[in-house]
Amino acid sequence: MREPKALTFDVFGTVVDWRTSIAREGRAFGERHGIETDWDRFADDWRGLYQPSLARVRDGERPWTRLDDLHRESLRTLLERRGVIVGKGGVSDASVDEFNRAWHRLDPWPDAVEGLTRLKRRYVLATLSNGNVALLVNMAKRAGLPWDAVLGAEVARRYKPQPDAYLTTADLLGLSPGECMMVAAHNDDLRAAGSLGFRTAFVRRPAEHGPDQVRDVRAEDAFDVVADDFIDLAEALGA
Amino acid sequence: MREPKALTFDVFGTVVDWRTSIAREGRAFGERHGIETDWDRFADDWRGLYQPSLARVRDGERPWTRLDDLHRESLRTLLERRGVIVGKGGVSDASVDEFNRAWHRLDPWPDAVEGLTRLKRRYVLATLSNGNVALLVNMAKRAGLPWDAVLGAEVARRYKPQPDAYLTTADLLGLSPGECMMVAAHNDDLRAAGSLGFRTAFVRRPAEHGPDQVRDVRAEDAFDVVADDFIDLAEALGA
Repeated sequence: MREPKALTFDVFGTVVDWRTSIAREGRAFGERHGIETDWDRFADDWRGLYQPSLARVRDGERPWTRLDDLHRESLRTLLERRGVIVGKGGVSDASVDEFNRAWHRLDPWPDAVEGLTRLKRRYVLATLSNGNVALLVNMAKRAGLPWDAVLGAEVARRYKPQPDAYLTTADLLGLSPGECMMVAAHNDDLRAAGSLGFRTAFVRRPAEHGPDQVRDVRAEDAFDVVADDFIDLAEALGA
Repeated sequence: MREPKALTFDVFGTVVDWRTSIAREGRAFGERHGIETDWDRFADDWRGLYQPSLARVRDGERPWTRLDDLHRESLRTLLERRGVIVGKGGVSDASVDEFNRAWHRLDPWPDAVEGLTRLKRRYVLATLSNGNVALLVNMAKRAGLPWDAVLGAEVARRYKPQPDAYLTTADLLGLSPGECMMVAAHNDDLRAAGSLGFRTAFVRRPAEHGPDQVRDVRAEDAFDVVADDFIDLAEALGA
């Protein structure tokens, strides 16, 4: 394998543990506002509305909308389904917005910072996420994620797996797709990147969806690298 | 003054010393290819073609073109003016391209890394440069510039001082212009940013254009901060 020059990373689930982080923030939000619900389930439900909300942008049903705004719409839907009043007489819009920004405060998997720090010595590290730039910048600053560049869907105005999300990121890095390696815990993401000429690295994140995870528990294609975590990835890439 | 959340940086001349770096790379290029010229003057001439080349993109005379490509065109013009043959029988295109990438290898001013490292603890640090993303990422990696985000002209497809270069950068950071402070050694850049609502910080770089510099030797407007270097800027901003 010719060595890549840049590693481009999926973020939600691959770099950060969204489920545990959102459930924790949900419990704090619930305590502040007297809302009782299963917050692990709430995190799953919120993430469950993610792909349908992206699909409406991808399909052209609505114009480009950043993920923060899609997340907020989904959050309001889920709160209303649980009988929570938002706005006048209920939970303030500012409080909902503060909870929505929990996606800016996701904790990294325990190996992520150490692995990225090692990989950064040898490769350009860029996000290639559906998260908007502000979300990813704020997350990186809080968690210490040492990105060289924060790119992906928002700068391309295309959500993965649309090709331009990948191709625009490579182009902004001044690289051909073959000089980039997509790193993700999700088979679909890697298949999309690989079909465009990206190298591919699957990192196992078997607890992303909690203890009963069934999808993406293993690499389903012949990806260039399969690793157990980011330290294993650094070893595999000689970093 | 309300405190800004992000500092957005002009790069050429403000963060890095392009003139000394380009002249040094020119001397090495000249030695490799037997070209004798005044390389300080060459650096000035190359930079002198910068604004005219940007102007043709800004004015719509030509479609969006990244700075690497504008730089390469200017370089070929300057080499040809000095009688250097490029291509068959002369200096190879690959050698010209390698010299063109000297802009990816500019050295920071001596205070830049220490000042940025201090400022990063308190603020989001983003480039707001006419340099393309790859140029800025490669420069940062070599020089140790700790950007949180590499943004500016290329992601907006507008060259400063066009408003969208500034406004798109603020928008991608999820901030209003008033939550951003433009840092530059150039009065025009700060005036353009300030007219859009950005806070402004002038940093003196009296040797940017060499020993006989006449422009931008001092702040010509009432900018929010005027500093002698990035450490002075960090002091002024309490970082």
